[in-house]
Amino acid sequence: MPVRRLHGAAESEDHDFLAAEEPLEIRVEGHSVAVVMRTPGEDQELAAGFLVTEGLVRAASDVLEISHQAHCWFPARRGQDQPAPTNGRSRPSRRFGPKVGMTGGNVVDVRLRSPKSMDLKKLTRHVFTSSSCGICGKASIEAVRQQFPGIADACEAEATVLWKLPRLLEAAQETFRWTGGLHACALFDLTGRLLALREDVGRHNALDKVVGWALLQRRLPLQGQILLLSGRASFEMLQKALAAGIPIVAAVSAPSSLAAEFARQSGQTLVGFLRGERMNIYAGAQRVRGQMRREDASQITAGSI
Amino acid sequence: MPVRRLHGAAESEDHDFLAAEEPLEIRVEGHSVAVVMRTPGEDQELAAGFLVTEGLVRAASDVLEISHQAHCWFPARRGQDQPAPTNGRSRPSRRFGPKVGMTGGNVVDVRLRSPKSMDLKKLTRHVFTSSSCGICGKASIEAVRQQFPGIADACEAEATVLWKLPRLLEAAQETFRWTGGLHACALFDLTGRLLALREDVGRHNALDKVVGWALLQRRLPLQGQILLLSGRASFEMLQKALAAGIPIVAAVSAPSSLAAEFARQSGQTLVGFLRGERMNIYAGAQRVRGQMRREDASQITAGSI
Repeated sequence: MPVRRLHGAAESEDHDFLAAEEPLEIRVEGHSVAVVMRTPGEDQELAAGFLVTEGLVRAASDVLEISHQAHCWFPARRGQDQPAPTNGRSRPSRRFGPKVGMTGGNVVDVRLRSPKSMDLKKLTRHVFTSSSCGICGKASIEAVRQQFPGIADACEAEATVLWKLPRLLEAAQETFRWTGGLHACALFDLTGRLLALREDVGRHNALDKVVGWALLQRRLPLQGQILLLSGRASFEMLQKALAAGIPIVAAVSAPSSLAAEFARQSGQTLVGFLRGERMNIYAGAQRVRGQMRREDASQITAGSI
Repeated sequence: MPVRRLHGAAESEDHDFLAAEEPLEIRVEGHSVAVVMRTPGEDQELAAGFLVTEGLVRAASDVLEISHQAHCWFPARRGQDQPAPTNGRSRPSRRFGPKVGMTGGNVVDVRLRSPKSMDLKKLTRHVFTSSSCGICGKASIEAVRQQFPGIADACEAEATVLWKLPRLLEAAQETFRWTGGLHACALFDLTGRLLALREDVGRHNALDKVVGWALLQRRLPLQGQILLLSGRASFEMLQKALAAGIPIVAAVSAPSSLAAEFARQSGQTLVGFLRGERMNIYAGAQRVRGQMRREDASQITAGSI
């Protein structure tokens, strides 16, 4: 993935590896029982393990076959601002292409030895119910984009403000100091003022709490505001931020590939690895004013060039 | 929560704060649409934000009322090996009692201004379908315990072996070095030999992949084996480990309250904050042989006492 790196006053364009994230539909005897967001690879193991941990399968002999359907296979795409491969091969370079489509399909069907003795109802406790067809990252992004408009917010945040946010979050996180076990989501304005902070064992819950607070405070959509995530940025976190109209999402840790792709397509700014005086910008870099650019601007204003 | 702390050769009994984890059932117009594992608190915000990010609610005026039902309220319990409060009050001390039940109910019902215009089908993309009644931590533990037998495995692991595992995991984690964005689950034997390692953007997926590998290798149940989690230990991770028969679960970060309670009731050993030469043991401490105890044993063998 293309990325703009900021380290103090230094800025550079680069490329970065991101953890691949794609939906997988798990079917049992042709019935869709779950859709999970996962990193492609070992998909048969994932389906088998899911059925064991849900209590449907106890031994390998319970399973007849686990087939991996190349259902939504499509070739790896290159981003607009990604360099074309220069090695003469027509296939996109593995170095830069996202893993999408390269690992085969996104549907696994499990056939059981005694399907009639299995209680599919057991699965209903934890299971994500499936949407329609189109279980691939591309379809996931499209489905969400049709539901929520993209972000056109022209706000800008100073890099120096963004760098302050993790320390402000840490200072405000009460429970974390005691337990070390909570995800946090915080909402800041463009000057770095903390508006809301929520913590939860689930990262999705922490964000839902912030968005729910905004709804009940009649503050939606959250224009000109920055969402800080204490952990990683996944597809679902970006989707939730879009639903609330948040233009800038910054994460202390890494984003997934699908999160970065989604942010780019929905007009969101996505910052990852926000630590010390560093950050990586994966999408919407026009909303982050780096020190270099600001100094250039002040030099121009002062007439020194 | 009571905890045994090991730091090198030093062992001590102590108490620790853990992040509370409990299920919340979200209902819309009386229909159960989701059960999420969450940290109690701001439950109305969580329900409101969930409906916003799922696209069902757009403005505060769409919502008529969000009621919090004290549905499964029960008083905080004290663990068997927890000291009774000595301050003369009959109510369990807030210092030691888990947050269970103290925050009110675990069901939120949202009433909408125009329920008929809302498309509840929109929710089906992401939603956990609900189990029957009994949406509280106690009921969650009971439901799982009825499905899977408790662990009676009498194996023992040396503390010195456990301390080596995070470094072994790190050395083996290929993708993490590139992306920094993946959860890892690894299976070790009691001598610290790595048997399987799986990574994923989702922590549940990483564990399901390990369990699926074990099933397909006909290694279930995983007696005498240690599961290492690169992050935090939640209720669902312990439940999945129990389904696979894993006696010892060790996490680099913190466990949740419900994870610790579940481990204790199901006979699992749960180690948290496994870092350097430190660890906290939250359940099943009999399976961890500390250095102190080993030295005592060797002294006795040598007849020096």
